[in-house]
Amino acid sequence: MTEHPRPIRLHLQNQPSEAPAFHATEAVWAAAAERHPDLARRLAVTIGWTQADFEAAIPSAEILVTWVSVVKETRAVYAHGAPHLRMIFCTSAGIDRVIPFDWLPDRVVLLNNSGVHAQKSAEWGLMAILMLANRMPLFATRQRARRFEKIYAPSVAGQTLLVVGVGALASPIIDQARSFGINVIGVRHAPVPHPGCHRVITTAALDDALPEADILLLACPLTPETTGMISRARLARMKPTAGIVNMARGAIVDQEALCDALEAGRLGGAVLDVVTPEPLPPDSRIWDTPNLLLSPHVSVDDPHTYTPRSLDLFFTNFGHWLKGEPMPNRIDTRRGY
Amino acid sequence: MTEHPRPIRLHLQNQPSEAPAFHATEAVWAAAAERHPDLARRLAVTIGWTQADFEAAIPSAEILVTWVSVVKETRAVYAHGAPHLRMIFCTSAGIDRVIPFDWLPDRVVLLNNSGVHAQKSAEWGLMAILMLANRMPLFATRQRARRFEKIYAPSVAGQTLLVVGVGALASPIIDQARSFGINVIGVRHAPVPHPGCHRVITTAALDDALPEADILLLACPLTPETTGMISRARLARMKPTAGIVNMARGAIVDQEALCDALEAGRLGGAVLDVVTPEPLPPDSRIWDTPNLLLSPHVSVDDPHTYTPRSLDLFFTNFGHWLKGEPMPNRIDTRRGY
Repeated sequence: MTEHPRPIRLHLQNQPSEAPAFHATEAVWAAAAERHPDLARRLAVTIGWTQADFEAAIPSAEILVTWVSVVKETRAVYAHGAPHLRMIFCTSAGIDRVIPFDWLPDRVVLLNNSGVHAQKSAEWGLMAILMLANRMPLFATRQRARRFEKIYAPSVAGQTLLVVGVGALASPIIDQARSFGINVIGVRHAPVPHPGCHRVITTAALDDALPEADILLLACPLTPETTGMISRARLARMKPTAGIVNMARGAIVDQEALCDALEAGRLGGAVLDVVTPEPLPPDSRIWDTPNLLLSPHVSVDDPHTYTPRSLDLFFTNFGHWLKGEPMPNRIDTRRGY
Repeated sequence: MTEHPRPIRLHLQNQPSEAPAFHATEAVWAAAAERHPDLARRLAVTIGWTQADFEAAIPSAEILVTWVSVVKETRAVYAHGAPHLRMIFCTSAGIDRVIPFDWLPDRVVLLNNSGVHAQKSAEWGLMAILMLANRMPLFATRQRARRFEKIYAPSVAGQTLLVVGVGALASPIIDQARSFGINVIGVRHAPVPHPGCHRVITTAALDDALPEADILLLACPLTPETTGMISRARLARMKPTAGIVNMARGAIVDQEALCDALEAGRLGGAVLDVVTPEPLPPDSRIWDTPNLLLSPHVSVDDPHTYTPRSLDLFFTNFGHWLKGEPMPNRIDTRRGY
């Protein structure tokens, strides 16, 4: 006799302000469901685009799949307006915008899409490392000044990369860096080894490692602990030739101190995908800071694969959830990631 | 009985105007000789720095190791002033500055140091490809205009790289590009397969391949055939989103047509290490051309390894020469490389 369990009600709420390439349309969902047929048939799915769609679905929804920006806008709802909800899967990796988690009922687990960025992360992170090694931020500044003056840069082989946050974002970059002969030191909250790092240290030992770094790569979540972590005093511990890559969140770095150091030649260069605030206002000093190149928070989002891979990650976690197993993308609300 | 052949007189002439990191000092030579003891003991070596040093050594020199710029300055000497000379080894890969070879006596073989750049070439070439894929030239232009506007770029996997010149400079880049899932089409003078390319075409078929390219990488020697090869008409065949990397010579591209195409948005971006002329004059339009980033002809020269590796290449070729074998770095003066 075939089992016919009651379908689980999943609501997928889009964020229309996101670029269309990132929308989870009926077709995008159907394609994902075809990749996971056994799991998809356990679900009764609604797809929403408007506030009215959300309000109609949330009282009966058991799983909500949506952007962290939607969760932020609807935080007031969850305590009393979503009595059946058991899971929120954010189609975002950084969930700092909904910290603190006082809006989240204990019965609801929160997940992110960490891991969605692997290939793009490898491509952008390696690019930024090679740009710093090859002095491209310096040459861009000299281009503005119409100065053609040679500086020869040695190979990155044997240089030291210090990576703050050795999670899903950084791991593919670390693999690439290793293949170029770069020496990798990882910095993480707890002293857990990482297969790609020659050495892992804890945040408490960061001060001692900073003077060793040729390149500092920031790839950690923004939490109360990491906010302002790369302070003026810590920037002063770095080599005057060192470069900084930030693909995490702008607020992890003391941005004024970073600009001061670059202007004074106390740092070699910076490649930033994130700043604070975003969008960066036209009067920010960042725009003209020497030896600094900026992209507008787009480093790791591949429009062709982002939403399909997010849904694949949802299905993977959903499979574990059905079996009562730990879910790899579950947020630890005490840590904040 | 031990054989004591007459030592072969080698003169090593430095170019004092090159950066000191590239000088072949007594110590640099001694270290190279220690790496090749059996070959080094066949040589009687003089090291020169001045015009007087050169003039004193050249009448009896059998082998000359020097920069292509020195060869250019001394071209008038070789027909009659260097009667014992049999080999010139240039510590440069591009020898376009001494074309045509009418100054070179038939009894003298000319070699370059092609192959010296492998690791740096891989690092710089991959960087440039990833910069174009990630729209960094566009974002640098927007940074100048203080505009923070997102454009999401897909992964390079599955994109098509068209490489003109699949020799020692390009091969390590092609290997890297393949590891990122890039489809590689090679363009070479003769239809000889290349292990890293999915397809190799000849120069005659370039027009047909240009519309396929997401990124065009120029890594060929400058010869009469390649001068102006990337003409206005050929640039017009490319996708409006395509990017161009030039790490060969500026004169391979119609530079005015390139600037026109970038200004009109008919090309996606450019990363140039070479321009014409060099140094680029302050009034060149290149400096302000949108979606173009420029480095000052430094892409592939590693100051730590350049001269030691050049001398290693000399010794490898010298070993073949002693045995009467073909030398891998010998210039074919009819082809020009």
